[in-house]
Amino acid sequence: MTIDKLETAEESVAGNGLLSRRLLLGLGISGTAAALSPNLLAAEASRFNIPSWSKQPGPGPSAYGQPSPFVADIQRDPGRANPLYPGGGASRTPLHALRGTLTPNGLHFERHHAGVPAIDPAEHKLIINGLVDRALAFSYDDLLRYPMVSRIQFLECSGNSGALFGATPPQGTAQSINGLVSCAEWTGIPLSVLLNEAGIDPTARWLSCVGADAASMGRSIPLDKALDDVLVALFQNGEPLRPEQGFPLRLFVPGWEGNVSVKWLTQLKLAREPSQFRDETSKYTDTLADRKSLQFSFPMGVKSIITSPSGKMQLQPGLYQIEGLAWSGAGRIAKVEVSADGGASWAPAHIDAQSGDKSLARFRVPWRYSGAPAQLISRATDSEGKLQPTRDALLAEVGSLAFYHFNAQQCWAVDNKGEVSNAYV
Amino acid sequence: MTIDKLETAEESVAGNGLLSRRLLLGLGISGTAAALSPNLLAAEASRFNIPSWSKQPGPGPSAYGQPSPFVADIQRDPGRANPLYPGGGASRTPLHALRGTLTPNGLHFERHHAGVPAIDPAEHKLIINGLVDRALAFSYDDLLRYPMVSRIQFLECSGNSGALFGATPPQGTAQSINGLVSCAEWTGIPLSVLLNEAGIDPTARWLSCVGADAASMGRSIPLDKALDDVLVALFQNGEPLRPEQGFPLRLFVPGWEGNVSVKWLTQLKLAREPSQFRDETSKYTDTLADRKSLQFSFPMGVKSIITSPSGKMQLQPGLYQIEGLAWSGAGRIAKVEVSADGGASWAPAHIDAQSGDKSLARFRVPWRYSGAPAQLISRATDSEGKLQPTRDALLAEVGSLAFYHFNAQQCWAVDNKGEVSNAYV
Repeated sequence: MTIDKLETAEESVAGNGLLSRRLLLGLGISGTAAALSPNLLAAEASRFNIPSWSKQPGPGPSAYGQPSPFVADIQRDPGRANPLYPGGGASRTPLHALRGTLTPNGLHFERHHAGVPAIDPAEHKLIINGLVDRALAFSYDDLLRYPMVSRIQFLECSGNSGALFGATPPQGTAQSINGLVSCAEWTGIPLSVLLNEAGIDPTARWLSCVGADAASMGRSIPLDKALDDVLVALFQNGEPLRPEQGFPLRLFVPGWEGNVSVKWLTQLKLAREPSQFRDETSKYTDTLADRKSLQFSFPMGVKSIITSPSGKMQLQPGLYQIEGLAWSGAGRIAKVEVSADGGASWAPAHIDAQSGDKSLARFRVPWRYSGAPAQLISRATDSEGKLQPTRDALLAEVGSLAFYHFNAQQCWAVDNKGEVSNAYV
Repeated sequence: MTIDKLETAEESVAGNGLLSRRLLLGLGISGTAAALSPNLLAAEASRFNIPSWSKQPGPGPSAYGQPSPFVADIQRDPGRANPLYPGGGASRTPLHALRGTLTPNGLHFERHHAGVPAIDPAEHKLIINGLVDRALAFSYDDLLRYPMVSRIQFLECSGNSGALFGATPPQGTAQSINGLVSCAEWTGIPLSVLLNEAGIDPTARWLSCVGADAASMGRSIPLDKALDDVLVALFQNGEPLRPEQGFPLRLFVPGWEGNVSVKWLTQLKLAREPSQFRDETSKYTDTLADRKSLQFSFPMGVKSIITSPSGKMQLQPGLYQIEGLAWSGAGRIAKVEVSADGGASWAPAHIDAQSGDKSLARFRVPWRYSGAPAQLISRATDSEGKLQPTRDALLAEVGSLAFYHFNAQQCWAVDNKGEVSNAYV
């Protein structure tokens, strides 16, 4: 058990209703569950104990399972197709409706530059060429014979939460504002194994990585990183990659902005310089206040978001679990703190689950909503000691022309009617 | 990286072709990948580099993703419906086709006693009664407000691999023989929190757990275990439970035989004695050689299986990765060894991934198949020092009338034509 000390009394640990993270009991007693007298219990039993689904056998086993129709609203938000950008766009993970630290494959966020190619793995090749001793071509079947490793790690689009750079707070949900982050067990071949097999020319410094989609999505990564912890991933949460995640194979670059984890990977070319691909010049560069741009800003910063309560939710006065997710491209999450008074005071959150290095961590702290306005903020500290910045501090550092790599603290304001909305503090 | 020392030379470490687990390179050089001369590379490029899916944009993002049609054969095996047992039966995880340690929700094994009920969570209740201070009824929405914890742990049906008790070796695949084991991140409420809220009578010793399916599947578990590490699970790999895994809620009893993790959980009754449910008297008891039965044998033993090469596969002489899964109801996997000569000599396997306590561990060791017959066996040792028994040792202990809890070493025999079949050694 990760929860080892229980407390039944509500002990205030920070302003505006934040309670000790060890508070676990009392929810039912305070009105969540119905305490049943013998008579009430009999009444409940007659009402509930023989529902229709308990009277007749249901369907038997199936070949591939699907979610219950009763949770059909837990979906990604693909939006409407844009005829000027065929296949382009994104869909976001419904973070407000999920629990734990993993994202099921059907709900992993998407970002496509020319839609999802329907690749026949028997006709797909991965070619390694450029500054190598011998160019190599691998079929999918070749790659399946290699030893693989598995890691549970997050993937975040560098544009996630980018709307929060805007001058006025965008109104939306945890999904629509922050849903370009997901986490899975990625299984694949260490890229170093394949590169060493091709033989690396000592003058090589960069690796150009190209996908087989109609955008020929390409990114360059420094060879040092490629040889460190990058995978050629073939499996996600145990099964072959989904088409929208790069089937049959993709790069997985731990801790770095999502788009360098090139999907539908078909070519790796070693070179002395980066390739200046379209998506590392026209896009995915960070424009600073002086209008100069940082072309490469790969690592994702330390970040946390509150997933519940979150935007568009409606609260009643009472006891809640403030919970959310935290992650860092630099390693593990060491600490998360939560404020209910806009940052004036902070309570330590309990970290319920964290699967490993660069995985999502799930945090939680109990909170009593009195009905008075509250401003809920979380801030994470990673294993390198980096603290998630305030929005003001981030803007002071990168200016207001930036769009990528927003990792600042975010505030959900709860008004005196219990409505939750995004706010700047 | 979990692989830190690479070796390019093939170093024999045990009989019949077993090689050092540090061997990683040389697969391509030895013929797996095609080494491309400049001319060949150009030829490959013209053949492969502009496939149809790279020429036209594909479909954009979607609400809920599905597997590629090119891996549609990676399925559970539900078998044919039995009219005498409506909704009953099982489907098994295609272990031979998966990698990593997690099972995607669509492929988690199933075992149903009266099919899958289509439960409306708004009409479902969890009642706690019996020897308690106050009986309580929880709605799904009530439970969603409780703090939850997450754990990545395996679930195994006690009947998994049971065919291997038979007098002649059953012929099948890793899926059909061993596929009643899966692993997921389970997220839910510690059962102790809910039981303590109801108030436990000091005379209570057992907990009777009943599902809302048409079988009213019921199992009794000792209260000690219930208060230790059992969850009322609501989420699996991040999303709400699938219907066939107990939506909206199930018990999750770590390390114990799968059927006590009662699905579609609707009642928890505290009592002095077990309830003698049908499925703990007529079934799920272990019959010993003297025809007496052990009624309760909850924990799952230490076990490993080789998933590749495995039954019905066809090999060519060459280099392979022998890989498989290991787990123990008692904790972590400390060691896996592999033999290619029927147990005469053993090589240490590399553990590529293990997510945590009572999770599946993935192991691997390189092997050169010479074309001569081989007998592949794995054996695991867990963190308690328990070694997986041989089949002879298991039969000597429990007799040949047993059907449940088969955890002995299993042998895949490879003949001189490369055909793989199950064998007793």
